[in-house]
Amino acid sequence: MPTKPELDQQEICIPKGYRFASVASGIKPSGAKDVTLIVADEPSVAAGVYTRNVVRAASMDWNEAITPSDSVRAIVVTSGNANACTGETGDRNNASKAELSAKQLTSDTTSVNKDQVLVLATGIIGVQLPMDCVETGIVDAANKLADSNESFLEAAEGIRTSDQFAKVYCKQFSSGGNTHTISAMAKGAGMIGPRMATMLCIITTDFPLDSDSSQAFLTKAVDESFNRISVEGHTSTNDAVILLAPSNSKSSSAEEQAKFQTQLMETCLHLAKLIPSDGEGATHLVEIEVTGAEDDSTADLIARAIAASNLVKTAITGNDPNWGRIVSAIGILDVDVDVKKVGLEINGFAVFENGQPCAFSEQEVSRSMSENFETTIQLTVGVGTGSSIHWTSDLTVDYVRFNSEYTT
Amino acid sequence: MPTKPELDQQEICIPKGYRFASVASGIKPSGAKDVTLIVADEPSVAAGVYTRNVVRAASMDWNEAITPSDSVRAIVVTSGNANACTGETGDRNNASKAELSAKQLTSDTTSVNKDQVLVLATGIIGVQLPMDCVETGIVDAANKLADSNESFLEAAEGIRTSDQFAKVYCKQFSSGGNTHTISAMAKGAGMIGPRMATMLCIITTDFPLDSDSSQAFLTKAVDESFNRISVEGHTSTNDAVILLAPSNSKSSSAEEQAKFQTQLMETCLHLAKLIPSDGEGATHLVEIEVTGAEDDSTADLIARAIAASNLVKTAITGNDPNWGRIVSAIGILDVDVDVKKVGLEINGFAVFENGQPCAFSEQEVSRSMSENFETTIQLTVGVGTGSSIHWTSDLTVDYVRFNSEYTT
Repeated sequence: MPTKPELDQQEICIPKGYRFASVASGIKPSGAKDVTLIVADEPSVAAGVYTRNVVRAASMDWNEAITPSDSVRAIVVTSGNANACTGETGDRNNASKAELSAKQLTSDTTSVNKDQVLVLATGIIGVQLPMDCVETGIVDAANKLADSNESFLEAAEGIRTSDQFAKVYCKQFSSGGNTHTISAMAKGAGMIGPRMATMLCIITTDFPLDSDSSQAFLTKAVDESFNRISVEGHTSTNDAVILLAPSNSKSSSAEEQAKFQTQLMETCLHLAKLIPSDGEGATHLVEIEVTGAEDDSTADLIARAIAASNLVKTAITGNDPNWGRIVSAIGILDVDVDVKKVGLEINGFAVFENGQPCAFSEQEVSRSMSENFETTIQLTVGVGTGSSIHWTSDLTVDYVRFNSEYTT
Repeated sequence: MPTKPELDQQEICIPKGYRFASVASGIKPSGAKDVTLIVADEPSVAAGVYTRNVVRAASMDWNEAITPSDSVRAIVVTSGNANACTGETGDRNNASKAELSAKQLTSDTTSVNKDQVLVLATGIIGVQLPMDCVETGIVDAANKLADSNESFLEAAEGIRTSDQFAKVYCKQFSSGGNTHTISAMAKGAGMIGPRMATMLCIITTDFPLDSDSSQAFLTKAVDESFNRISVEGHTSTNDAVILLAPSNSKSSSAEEQAKFQTQLMETCLHLAKLIPSDGEGATHLVEIEVTGAEDDSTADLIARAIAASNLVKTAITGNDPNWGRIVSAIGILDVDVDVKKVGLEINGFAVFENGQPCAFSEQEVSRSMSENFETTIQLTVGVGTGSSIHWTSDLTVDYVRFNSEYTT
């Protein structure tokens, strides 16, 4: 098994104006942190992208009614319980979480309304939230809020479920003579499917935005990152990516905005790739690049079909350049492919060209797969200019063991 | 792990007019049987249904050009090598297989043409057939042909690859005062996806048919059986179901024909369910029944989405009534579902009703799952009368182990 690269060696920096806290309230039987607050000191611009699963948690409808917004004050996250498929009781508990958080943040000088609080949840489906734990957790977290690197890392820790490591990414960039910061955290390792947004991610920045452009920037960034990853392709009920930013007092130039979009894209891409890298039981991150398709959406379909194939994933687990499984995965789709034009490279080695097997050393390709955590699959369809890229994890004995032993 | 029921306790009987043989030619490194001949003594009606994978073996095009037909004499099957993705050399080798078989069957009294021979292949993709082995194998098999139960069972054994057991089904029925026989063999345990035809199956009967109605009967039977099973949902390059029958000298009555259709359906259904039962590493056969959908095709999409979910499959492996994974799998699709109307039973226990979790004993449901080889999932959508049924296997550590250790 190749060693995972050092994925989380990150210099931490956080934008001014945000405070973080996470506590263990007892939702997780393990006693790990499970109630997390992320608070903006001022009413903030907030954009959100949410799961497309029609079977979704109460929190998703709640957030969708609020974002895009320019007056969000906080995000409350529970981990260990998704509060999904929990009926009307679940709806009420979701609203209580926002209400309890708003109450804790209301002071003599500022009043926070429940509609200014976004709600995220991740964990088991179909179990009612233990509201006594949640209530104590919110009070304790509110009392601990701090604008330190440590509290940011604690929050990233607190939103984890089956993740092996906390996923954070921080970067600074200059724009219009000022230095700005983006700090983002994400969680996700299982129930990761490609139909957006397949995990939780919270991005805070001090770059001022208006609510409409914040939503447009986030939607674009998510589409090219979190919407291109999978672990087992099972879209979750609770996935969300949220961006918080200060309200735009004076509008920034088109050039500055474009620069921010690039930074945001880079942030989302970095965190998105960490998710299949930390996929349950994963021993390889698999990058699938499809080129030469009729159009981009056809390329995308092909990349996703390859990423969804258990036979492809298990071959990669075994460091096996079993390219027949990759080429045959294309044909599962209703797309018109002329096999005689198809070519395939694995880790840069040509294995199939113009519909014919290439002469290559299986041992050499297999060695390259076993020595690298990342396996690259480059498939050319040979008919057009459409292209797409997708990241997934391999499928291991540990994935099955973990998911057949989880809950109950 | 629940014990598999006795799946292969079958009384063997074969229709008159067919001979069978299988030999070990050296294609399989294990030394197991790998070249099989199934021969009709007279030019016969033949219908075929083939894989819908656009990436498919030379043999698929070959057969599709021949069937439906009323002059087929033989089927030659190689196992251990799929002769798929093998370019023009593969096309030539496929034609040679038919030609060599035709030559062996030509005698002083009868001449067999290569266009009267159907070709099937199963095994590794992208490796050229060792034609010296194939040639010797065909000669040896032709010399061994016999119309005995033993030779029929040997043929069923010879078409296996990763199957744990040979899959056969024989039945007799009376029609128009005569007793008729259907004898069928199938193979398949991996690369089983639901878009037809996901394995090999050869059905021989002495019930006389014309070529057009044989094709219509077979297409309908396959649609309700082999098109409703999966192991991991990866449609193969080589799947085929072939029906051989004597040519219809006097046309049978509509009633007799309907009776044959029923018998054929029952045969296909029996063999289809044996395939996920023998799914690579499988410890459960999973029956997924969806009712109350807007229409049958929506019900079908939902059943397939549940069957395709690794999270559902691993929960069943663990005898875990983790219904949240089942209900959330629906939402992956682009179908309009009102969760508040959805209900779910596992092995007859209600676990979710009208969008609310039911009170049930997890221990009791789990015990029922662990004690039975078959797990039944009954999902009602609550909006219409559309229904569908699908069978799949669970996903186990042994599936992953097997598929990450196969080839190379």
